[in-house]
Amino acid sequence: MLGYKMITMAFVYPQTLTRPTAISCLPDETPATDPPARKLPRGSSQLNRWSMARSLRSGRRLDWSAQRKDSAATNTVSLIQPAISSDDEEVGEDDGDMSAGKAIYMVSDGTGWTAEHSVNAALGQFEYCLVDRGCAVNTQLFSGVEDVDRLIEIIKQAAEEGALVLYTLVDPSMAEAAKHGCQLWGVPSADILSPTTEAIATHLGVAPSGIPRGAPGRNPLSKEYFKRIEAIDFTIKQDDGALPQNLNRANIVLVGVSRTGKTPLSIYLAQKGYKVANIPIVMGVDLPKTLFEINQDKVFGLTINPVVLQTIRKARAKSLGFSNQMESNYSDMEHVRQEIEFANRIFAQNPVWPVIEVTGKAIEETAAVILRILHDRKKKCSMPSISKRY
Amino acid sequence: MLGYKMITMAFVYPQTLTRPTAISCLPDETPATDPPARKLPRGSSQLNRWSMARSLRSGRRLDWSAQRKDSAATNTVSLIQPAISSDDEEVGEDDGDMSAGKAIYMVSDGTGWTAEHSVNAALGQFEYCLVDRGCAVNTQLFSGVEDVDRLIEIIKQAAEEGALVLYTLVDPSMAEAAKHGCQLWGVPSADILSPTTEAIATHLGVAPSGIPRGAPGRNPLSKEYFKRIEAIDFTIKQDDGALPQNLNRANIVLVGVSRTGKTPLSIYLAQKGYKVANIPIVMGVDLPKTLFEINQDKVFGLTINPVVLQTIRKARAKSLGFSNQMESNYSDMEHVRQEIEFANRIFAQNPVWPVIEVTGKAIEETAAVILRILHDRKKKCSMPSISKRY
Repeated sequence: MLGYKMITMAFVYPQTLTRPTAISCLPDETPATDPPARKLPRGSSQLNRWSMARSLRSGRRLDWSAQRKDSAATNTVSLIQPAISSDDEEVGEDDGDMSAGKAIYMVSDGTGWTAEHSVNAALGQFEYCLVDRGCAVNTQLFSGVEDVDRLIEIIKQAAEEGALVLYTLVDPSMAEAAKHGCQLWGVPSADILSPTTEAIATHLGVAPSGIPRGAPGRNPLSKEYFKRIEAIDFTIKQDDGALPQNLNRANIVLVGVSRTGKTPLSIYLAQKGYKVANIPIVMGVDLPKTLFEINQDKVFGLTINPVVLQTIRKARAKSLGFSNQMESNYSDMEHVRQEIEFANRIFAQNPVWPVIEVTGKAIEETAAVILRILHDRKKKCSMPSISKRY
Repeated sequence: MLGYKMITMAFVYPQTLTRPTAISCLPDETPATDPPARKLPRGSSQLNRWSMARSLRSGRRLDWSAQRKDSAATNTVSLIQPAISSDDEEVGEDDGDMSAGKAIYMVSDGTGWTAEHSVNAALGQFEYCLVDRGCAVNTQLFSGVEDVDRLIEIIKQAAEEGALVLYTLVDPSMAEAAKHGCQLWGVPSADILSPTTEAIATHLGVAPSGIPRGAPGRNPLSKEYFKRIEAIDFTIKQDDGALPQNLNRANIVLVGVSRTGKTPLSIYLAQKGYKVANIPIVMGVDLPKTLFEINQDKVFGLTINPVVLQTIRKARAKSLGFSNQMESNYSDMEHVRQEIEFANRIFAQNPVWPVIEVTGKAIEETAAVILRILHDRKKKCSMPSISKRY
């Protein structure tokens, strides 16, 4: 693996203060704390002094406007992040200082979603120390990086911050530039898509196109893509028992009491191209007749531990602003147990339906289980797999 | 890269016909055509004769029950795939013979979604020949592969079918087994997650846990996970202009005429943790007042080429079963142009809103553009990136 060296370099700040096209910014600060000043490299020919960066990170505030005047003489520029309005919660933000912990940069000449997905999956292997912040990590996703100048800016910033650069650059010249740039600046890096692309290229005996998403020559709108859009449309309209007459058009039908995750699960499956209908089980309300008339192979029951369900419902009732009386019925333990028993009786009467325990499972895991069973049944064998043709 | 050899081996079929726990099935057939007979290896100590496999693939049907009786004497078993009921469309299926084209197996000890995502991204590099079937590919996803016996079965089947095996096996002993098994059976393979995991491990200075998704010790239900669930909930309820009073709680607001992709786009963004509200632009209907009262930085306009919009609407009207008169208004070219001009006038009056052209873009691409702009604005710099803390 590449090690990395901190590079201390100094450049003269240009007299003009017009904004260069490739300015790198350091990671976002949490709005709640007084943000430590951050260094802001200006222009493509500058790197901030490493020692200045370190003292800034220790919390010394520098005024942006004063610094700008100084910057012609010195060669560092600091930026105090403006307070971000907190009328809406920041997504993915967390209490805690962004400067504590290691940085991982995900760089892509496309959407970046593959890099993000792979890195999130890999980070799951470090949950045990992320949780107690023994190894705090912050990630930054740079997508649509289509020219080398931007790429080099990112690498320089990574060098400065001691970040790891993981990239999915399908353009071979960009991938080469990343590899060499990271070596040059001593940044640890890895190409996380090439192993897959090269294996497929060798297997198929054809060369990869090297064209990123969104560039001319790429056509993302395949038949399968439109099927997925249609599935999402169908699933949204079917949510929560709407339109039971359309159950026969669904690929999957989910049945369960409230808060067993039917909605997010149905959305997740829809994004994979499956039309999903949800049927809520409510005590005292009959299930729609059509549920029992359709192909039973596509019906799946969802169940959950009652204590966990109660916790989820309490939180849900609070966030929805239920009155105390409404809340107490919805999330009352005895009522919860009765609902689950009612659901279990329905499942017992319909033994063909697989019943999936969702307690402690993420949506992605439950989806994987459902699809394994669904495809297993279709192929009538016990080595389930999901097949697609391209 | 590993080359692979076809291995011809013969084993005696066991007398008992109890179903072994690890039966491999070959890819699913399209239900519409008369499926060619497929070989079915039985038990973990058998490989079908390669030459028999090839003659079977040429289309010769073998009766399953007759074959079973024969199998004690011979050593191949064929299975004719039962016709799959076509009351619902197969997801991901396609006209075309599954046996034409190269097979790619994606093997995971978790959900398999990372492997699937990476392989789909890599296959985008081969669109140019997939489209004209110059290099037809079929994929199979094997998820939850947690024991070595199943893994070896899959590898054997891959050997037989000439498949490439791409795996995300976080358990190091499983990854080793896959590597050696593939070498042994001459199957081309690649570990597509380890490069990422190892790079991160080196960077953080801690070892990966080696625990797959779903196994004890893994806790997928983080604070970020619950935020995503909440975002999905919010977004579903906000769809299509419902509850305009909640616009200030949204992270992103999408504004555009019908069929500019607001719904699937909002769902995609919600799955990334963003609360999204959609506001449809309809000629003659005022936009909700609250749209102009919230922070304008989170509002995004969507626009589309009118000819493309008309095509989409025609298809949509047909699938919804609109009457001819309703359809003609909805998808009539003149009406479409007027709606888009109406929308453009609104966008011109609100120049703060970025207007994103969605024509020819996949949802993932539009989402990447929106999030780049959103995060760029928050950080007040022009090297946009999306930051998260773990």
